Amino acid sequence: MDKSLIKILLVAIAINLVALCNGGITSPYVRGVDPSTDMPFNSDVFRPPKGYNAPQQVHITQGDHIGRSVIVSWVTPSEPGTNIIQYGKVHNKTEFEAHCNEVVTYKFYNYTSGFIHHCTIHNLQYNTRYFYQLGSGEVTRQFHFKTPPEVGPDAPYTFGVMGDLGQTYNSNETVEHYVSKGRGQAVLFAGDLSYADHYPFNDQRRWDTWGRFLERSTAYQSWIWAAGNHELDYIPEVLETTPFKPYTTRYHVPYEASGSTSPLWYSIKRASAYIIVLSSYSSFGKYTPQYNWLKQELPKANRSETPWLIVLLHSPWYNSYNYHYMEGETMRVMFEPWFVQNKVDIVFAGHVHGYERSERVSNIEYSIVNGKCTPVSNPSAPVYITIGDGGNIEGRANNFTEPQPDYSAYREASFGHAIFDIKNRTHAHFAWYRNLGKVADVGDSLWLHNRHWLPQ
Amino acid sequence: MDKSLIKILLVAIAINLVALCNGGITSPYVRGVDPSTDMPFNSDVFRPPKGYNAPQQVHITQGDHIGRSVIVSWVTPSEPGTNIIQYGKVHNKTEFEAHCNEVVTYKFYNYTSGFIHHCTIHNLQYNTRYFYQLGSGEVTRQFHFKTPPEVGPDAPYTFGVMGDLGQTYNSNETVEHYVSKGRGQAVLFAGDLSYADHYPFNDQRRWDTWGRFLERSTAYQSWIWAAGNHELDYIPEVLETTPFKPYTTRYHVPYEASGSTSPLWYSIKRASAYIIVLSSYSSFGKYTPQYNWLKQELPKANRSETPWLIVLLHSPWYNSYNYHYMEGETMRVMFEPWFVQNKVDIVFAGHVHGYERSERVSNIEYSIVNGKCTPVSNPSAPVYITIGDGGNIEGRANNFTEPQPDYSAYREASFGHAIFDIKNRTHAHFAWYRNLGKVADVGDSLWLHNRHWLPQ
Repeated sequence: MDKSLIKILLVAIAINLVALCNGGITSPYVRGVDPSTDMPFNSDVFRPPKGYNAPQQVHITQGDHIGRSVIVSWVTPSEPGTNIIQYGKVHNKTEFEAHCNEVVTYKFYNYTSGFIHHCTIHNLQYNTRYFYQLGSGEVTRQFHFKTPPEVGPDAPYTFGVMGDLGQTYNSNETVEHYVSKGRGQAVLFAGDLSYADHYPFNDQRRWDTWGRFLERSTAYQSWIWAAGNHELDYIPEVLETTPFKPYTTRYHVPYEASGSTSPLWYSIKRASAYIIVLSSYSSFGKYTPQYNWLKQELPKANRSETPWLIVLLHSPWYNSYNYHYMEGETMRVMFEPWFVQNKVDIVFAGHVHGYERSERVSNIEYSIVNGKCTPVSNPSAPVYITIGDGGNIEGRANNFTEPQPDYSAYREASFGHAIFDIKNRTHAHFAWYRNLGKVADVGDSLWLHNRHWLPQ
Repeated sequence: MDKSLIKILLVAIAINLVALCNGGITSPYVRGVDPSTDMPFNSDVFRPPKGYNAPQQVHITQGDHIGRSVIVSWVTPSEPGTNIIQYGKVHNKTEFEAHCNEVVTYKFYNYTSGFIHHCTIHNLQYNTRYFYQLGSGEVTRQFHFKTPPEVGPDAPYTFGVMGDLGQTYNSNETVEHYVSKGRGQAVLFAGDLSYADHYPFNDQRRWDTWGRFLERSTAYQSWIWAAGNHELDYIPEVLETTPFKPYTTRYHVPYEASGSTSPLWYSIKRASAYIIVLSSYSSFGKYTPQYNWLKQELPKANRSETPWLIVLLHSPWYNSYNYHYMEGETMRVMFEPWFVQNKVDIVFAGHVHGYERSERVSNIEYSIVNGKCTPVSNPSAPVYITIGDGGNIEGRANNFTEPQPDYSAYREASFGHAIFDIKNRTHAHFAWYRNLGKVADVGDSLWLHNRHWLPQ
């Protein structure tokens, strides 16, 4: 046998041995400097807009089930002001008005919020840029957004994906990378927004700074929200006992359009994607509202219309960091069989402050007495992505369970964001970008084959 | 070797083989007739008391953390009437008055409730019989109760235990057996009260009949309530989307006394018992209110003061019926390690319409990758009792997983109730009684050794 053939054979054997011994990759990359501290109140990114009572903290999200409505939300600090949105298709020519009358404030311990406005613009045309104007008189502000293409199986669409963002210098890097790249058309956000609860009595002013910080993106494209544990804002010691009060007051979602009875779980269709948002911190046992809703909801995802079935939730089911290990089990044991039966394509979770991608695995055979409790390869299972690496004040998860379990394909303790780029009914490209100061480079990527249209 | 020695050896081997092959007993007893139908509205047991606006559906429960208060609840059908309770230690001599002003009504679909009264009598003496009178003028009704002994390690106390009661002829048998035996001093109720939700639009009149049906016991001794799935009363189709509305409006519990922020989970001390009530249908993931509360709560059970640590919840963790199999997993994976660490003595659950007793087992070693997911014998683990056999309209669970798993010590598809009889800090006797028409006989019993004082 000639030497080169032997060499090729040896390399092949080595690769196979490595794959056998270690199913996944733990990235050795560790960034040197890691300033996980919140930006100060007087930071430029938190600066309120000029003018008396100027609308601030502007954010939009999809306002119906199919993408022809937009919920616009903003805060006026001094008085309610107008709740009319002027909008139109031509810059500086606002030919339409949306009249709303929902203005709310809330109290939390010793804090009283500004005037929080929510107004839905209905009957928009698909795939169209709209300009909209908030405020009145001399203090108005203009923004714009583009509606998604009509719901359909081959409508391409590009989502940004982020989680656990907070408002540190790292958070700022993540957002800057996402915005400057300019590729994402909407954001899938996996929970944990402001981290206001890091401060005594959950200093609600940090919800306001967060709203202003994110405006550069949230005013211009829909962010699809899921709630994390940092949205609970639950402090019984000071009689703040209504979970999610600040979050649900500030961030509205179109939950009723999908037959949900809570803003904490809902679904939307957007282009070729069917997106289901779940709540890790609500009840989900059999018979509960979330359980009943999801049971009915999953079969409604018509893959001929929306091939890509995406789930967004906060607490990951497949996590191999030493942080929050196995916290997702309580939900996994309820819902994982449904995800496999319904061939969910991809699940985005946050919570763990790093990045991880799973193999397509399932762990649904367990019967208490059969000993079958180890994740196994399953082509009908989703890819699970942990993307809690937005850059918040709690710092990075930098400690893994060892050895890397077979279900873990790639893990890296860096901050960053991802782009989920749907090309057509069969192919989507996923890329995760790690923060490297002023630039971001691809840390992990893969082509996803649709579970309905290209399951093999 | 002489023949008798051989015989003894063979018997010993046979017993060991049986124990090896089958850790538990599946009772072959099957009752012939099984009329699991609700008693009709005009049944004697549902008859309202005589007199205009006479107080009805009287029920009491412990009103504080230590047993010196009682919450008295009742319904007046026509108008609010008085909310004053007259009470005293001598029959027909009501020397004290409790003045309250809580009278509520609720609407559910097309039903409007009567006037629901809740009034707490405070500062009672321990171990004392009190007479109390409701109503005013010519329409008054008198009842009585006995307070528990002072909280202490050797205070004997006898609890009745029931679950999934409903209002069928079988339910009536169960209650009749419990009341006529006259041994129970208070009832631990494991959820699923009226089964009003068996009827279209959860016919709320069935909550009223249930209240009148049970008055013969609930007006005279404290029932300690846990909520089951049939208390959810959740019908989004008719916009009834507040889970547990009828239940929490009708049945009050002293949840604030144990630092809870929800009536669905709380604790009380009663004699030598520390009783923790949990909610299978609320959130219990990490960071949620119930999780936070239980984490703080379990270590508060001072076994020097209250040796017997009892948990009451609805959906069982160790169930080997083919009904509701593994539904309790989602809560078990969260809380089982705490139960073992804190050496809970006994857990009462309902939900499955039969009786089952577990061995002392635990299943807390699982790490996703280690394969350790089979329940093992553990002397620090509680005994798990399923007692969802009150006799409700859905009928018996009469179908088991086979073979009987090792964790199951005894199971029988009969209706019935149990008596948990605490003798002192080291010993308690548990007996389960199956319904046999007019009589009830012991189907299963055991002596429990306290996990703190006599762990071996």
